[in-house]
Amino acid sequence: MKGLKIKLADDMLVLRQANQPATVINVKGCPIGGDSIVVVAGPCAIENEEILKETAFKVRGSGAVMLRGGAYKPRTSPYSFQGLGEEGLRILARIGEEMNMPVVTEVMDTADIELVSQYADILQVGARNMQNFSLLKKLGQINKPIILKRGLAATIEEWLWAAEYILAGGNSQVILCERGIRTSEPWTRNTLDLSAVALVKELTHLPVLVDPSHATGIRSLVTPMARAAIAAGADGIMVEVHPHPERALSDGDQSLTPKGFSQLMKEIEPIARAVGRRVY
Amino acid sequence: MKGLKIKLADDMLVLRQANQPATVINVKGCPIGGDSIVVVAGPCAIENEEILKETAFKVRGSGAVMLRGGAYKPRTSPYSFQGLGEEGLRILARIGEEMNMPVVTEVMDTADIELVSQYADILQVGARNMQNFSLLKKLGQINKPIILKRGLAATIEEWLWAAEYILAGGNSQVILCERGIRTSEPWTRNTLDLSAVALVKELTHLPVLVDPSHATGIRSLVTPMARAAIAAGADGIMVEVHPHPERALSDGDQSLTPKGFSQLMKEIEPIARAVGRRVY
Amino acid sequence: MKGLKIKLADDMLVLRQANQPATVINVKGCPIGGDSIVVVAGPCAIENEEILKETAFKVRGSGAVMLRGGAYKPRTSPYSFQGLGEEGLRILARIGEEMNMPVVTEVMDTADIELVSQYADILQVGARNMQNFSLLKKLGQINKPIILKRGLAATIEEWLWAAEYILAGGNSQVILCERGIRTSEPWTRNTLDLSAVALVKELTHLPVLVDPSHATGIRSLVTPMARAAIAAGADGIMVEVHPHPERALSDGDQSLTPKGFSQLMKEIEPIARAVGRRVY
Amino acid sequence: MKGLKIKLADDMLVLRQANQPATVINVKGCPIGGDSIVVVAGPCAIENEEILKETAFKVRGSGAVMLRGGAYKPRTSPYSFQGLGEEGLRILARIGEEMNMPVVTEVMDTADIELVSQYADILQVGARNMQNFSLLKKLGQINKPIILKRGLAATIEEWLWAAEYILAGGNSQVILCERGIRTSEPWTRNTLDLSAVALVKELTHLPVLVDPSHATGIRSLVTPMARAAIAAGADGIMVEVHPHPERALSDGDQSLTPKGFSQLMKEIEPIARAVGRRVY
Repeated sequence: MKGLKIKLADDMLVLRQANQPATVINVKGCPIGGDSIVVVAGPCAIENEEILKETAFKVRGSGAVMLRGGAYKPRTSPYSFQGLGEEGLRILARIGEEMNMPVVTEVMDTADIELVSQYADILQVGARNMQNFSLLKKLGQINKPIILKRGLAATIEEWLWAAEYILAGGNSQVILCERGIRTSEPWTRNTLDLSAVALVKELTHLPVLVDPSHATGIRSLVTPMARAAIAAGADGIMVEVHPHPERALSDGDQSLTPKGFSQLMKEIEPIARAVGRRVY
Repeated sequence: MKGLKIKLADDMLVLRQANQPATVINVKGCPIGGDSIVVVAGPCAIENEEILKETAFKVRGSGAVMLRGGAYKPRTSPYSFQGLGEEGLRILARIGEEMNMPVVTEVMDTADIELVSQYADILQVGARNMQNFSLLKKLGQINKPIILKRGLAATIEEWLWAAEYILAGGNSQVILCERGIRTSEPWTRNTLDLSAVALVKELTHLPVLVDPSHATGIRSLVTPMARAAIAAGADGIMVEVHPHPERALSDGDQSLTPKGFSQLMKEIEPIARAVGRRVY
Repeated sequence: MKGLKIKLADDMLVLRQANQPATVINVKGCPIGGDSIVVVAGPCAIENEEILKETAFKVRGSGAVMLRGGAYKPRTSPYSFQGLGEEGLRILARIGEEMNMPVVTEVMDTADIELVSQYADILQVGARNMQNFSLLKKLGQINKPIILKRGLAATIEEWLWAAEYILAGGNSQVILCERGIRTSEPWTRNTLDLSAVALVKELTHLPVLVDPSHATGIRSLVTPMARAAIAAGADGIMVEVHPHPERALSDGDQSLTPKGFSQLMKEIEPIARAVGRRVY
Repeated sequence: MKGLKIKLADDMLVLRQANQPATVINVKGCPIGGDSIVVVAGPCAIENEEILKETAFKVRGSGAVMLRGGAYKPRTSPYSFQGLGEEGLRILARIGEEMNMPVVTEVMDTADIELVSQYADILQVGARNMQNFSLLKKLGQINKPIILKRGLAATIEEWLWAAEYILAGGNSQVILCERGIRTSEPWTRNTLDLSAVALVKELTHLPVLVDPSHATGIRSLVTPMARAAIAAGADGIMVEVHPHPERALSDGDQSLTPKGFSQLMKEIEPIARAVGRRVY
């Protein structure tokens, strides 16, 4: 990065060396980081089999290739719904298989890594755990792709070092995910930092996704930000979809309906083409 | 805005009422806020006639329709180059006329409004003056379009109220411009807030531009962020271009070369089409 | 500053050179920056002569040595009370003389400097105008002390450079005032940055005040933060006091009653002694 | 909190109910949260027995009542010193016993809770783990006092909810610790938020400490901020002390020397008295 006052160790595994190709991570036949834009969709939390199945069926029909859903939910209050735990994992794996969609879910505790790995195709580290170094170290020792969300107030530098923890442990399948940072703007839940996406794509060889749902917290902004993310160079998006957002156990305000998601897919397709890519 | 906890007075002039069309501001035949994406380009500061002329000639050749350049420069240090003042305004107006490009320049002092108005087609309020209410009030009384940049730490709410100051004074020609907010991310100069662009486009009837140069402070990020801005729904972009950025008296690190600007124009065109618009 | 990565020009007027004594600014016999802690109190806005007189009488009785009150008010909305203007200045000057208290008031426009100077003993630059460089330059040319509030998102570096604008113009009577910065914490109006106070006291020779009222926006926090400010090394405090906060035209939530102010004065006195100073 | 727009569940365990006394947590005879100001001191990381012993001996001599030191260190880079692990815990416990000082150390992983509990008198949750809900839940089930540091960008509300996780699990011995939040000010490592301390003291019954070392990252600011913390109402401070800061394996820039710490103790004593308290 000529002209940038960026200080990272030159030999970090996370950095893109001269002539190094971009890393493409293959998840059950779906490459992440290649020419195609990957779309991961699903509800915030797995609530029951019916809702997840309905959501999966509809998002797959609109073009999503992977299914997301939380079994362990990081909630501000201990009295909020905390997720279905292992029962949720089972539901997720079953629906994923039935729909032929790889599944993504969050792991929050080093003690759960083995269990979550049995069910999930990709393990996600949430924003609040981006610097849970014990978790990162243990995820460096497994053979599963990891989605590493950027912390709520993490600098790009800290984000790359967090990825380095996983890579240094021997797991090279890291996918970065920008999901908004905390700023002094109160109307949006967070501020989606798309310059970080473009900068990280320059600096690293890793794929980068964007989560416009958590970033904005406002349903009507999800599609414009999905378009912008792909225009900025993201390799894919993660979107919350719920068949009945008004009844969702968490994050209803920002969830798209299946119909809204279908519209999103229509709108990102021409953007993907405009940057020389395509949506699966 | 159903579902949003946004508190603004319902009858604010800045808000888009039901069925109200978007405001299109016509500047010497260039509409801002209509179907076409407007591109404003030029150096950060007007340094001399030759450089401005060379820049204008080249950016016009690549498709810019308006010329920008600062005669009064807000600089952190009193010992930095403060701009050419009225001599700069004269140069700007002359080149604008020669090239047939409307010109944009910043006004920093209520005492300069009359003078700047004689030379400029659009007056710009810089980020540091977004809540200079004396300036806003007096700009409400003139008959020139105003570009109102978002303050460095201004909330969207404060930005809209700042626009309201100008509208309330009787001047309805306000163009909003997002240029990044100050956050805890140190690698980029500011954090470009494109969710604010999408949200402000929903809430108001005013045109919204994006300045990816000041927002990022890094040359290589200007084009990706210009693409993202248009994908998010911006009505145009303002870009710093300098024939010799390494010799620029201010903001050289973020200025595109004319060649880089030409590449930017090539890349935003398909994005504009993907959102149903075109670049002039 | 050994060990600090602080980059300022070594010969800046604002910096404290080796063996340079602290600057003490004498305002009608009240020294600011010396051994005594100065307390400036009064209502946010001057509403009428009765209220100001009642406030002045009471705060003087409790130990305030200077009177503050706004005649020109920077308000987010153009439809909010904007201050009484020159009529307010006249009231302020009259009460100040009657009570034998120097008076402080804000100036927002270069066009008003001369007028405000006729009435005020100290001119204040508000947070929103900290980088209104036109205003700073003109205040560098007058012979009145200036209170320079830190901008809402201004770095310490920018604050010192803003002071340098005034000093470079020839006016050496600058008093810095920390009043909270904008952060991601939503419960307090701003985040009072007392480390900035301690750091600025090390770096410069200028007096530094703290405004705990605007910083917190919460009445019950004003006194604890006044105590903390003095413990941190501040040379004084500015506090909002209103005889009937619930009826105040602005900032009622954070205004102390005269009784609350009297309690504040009782509590800061032992703190001042604990750091080897005294309250006037 | 009359007049505050604070939304918390009224029956949260963390909140102070009418007439509820402040919680005093007794650690081997040292009460935290009572009339006395508690001072916890020690090196950032436990490096070896000699250094820890020298530090403990000196800080105890100056008046510290508890000893801190990290055996598991959360470091941005995986290649930085990560702490001595169990060997560090053993050293810490041995020195604590020898010096008759209760010891505080950080736990980062649910898998380490049992082990750390065998050696430490107080377990600390670091800022990066404030919303590691798995960790919080398991700490709710042990019978040891917990110091809960505020997250780098955590709101006060989230901090209180994080404490609620521990309380809801059945462990009522929670001590809050403010250690600075991330803001746009780059000169200090973080911005110490003392208004949060005063506000949290109003809202809750829990003791609140302040860590001026991590908050500022600058040695010369530690003592002024320790004074300010106590003036603001904190129940104690945690300070980094190292006999040879220039050779420390982590955080040398912000560590006090034993001599500097002795000076700090001299300066906080009169402040404690000024607020009606005393230092042990």
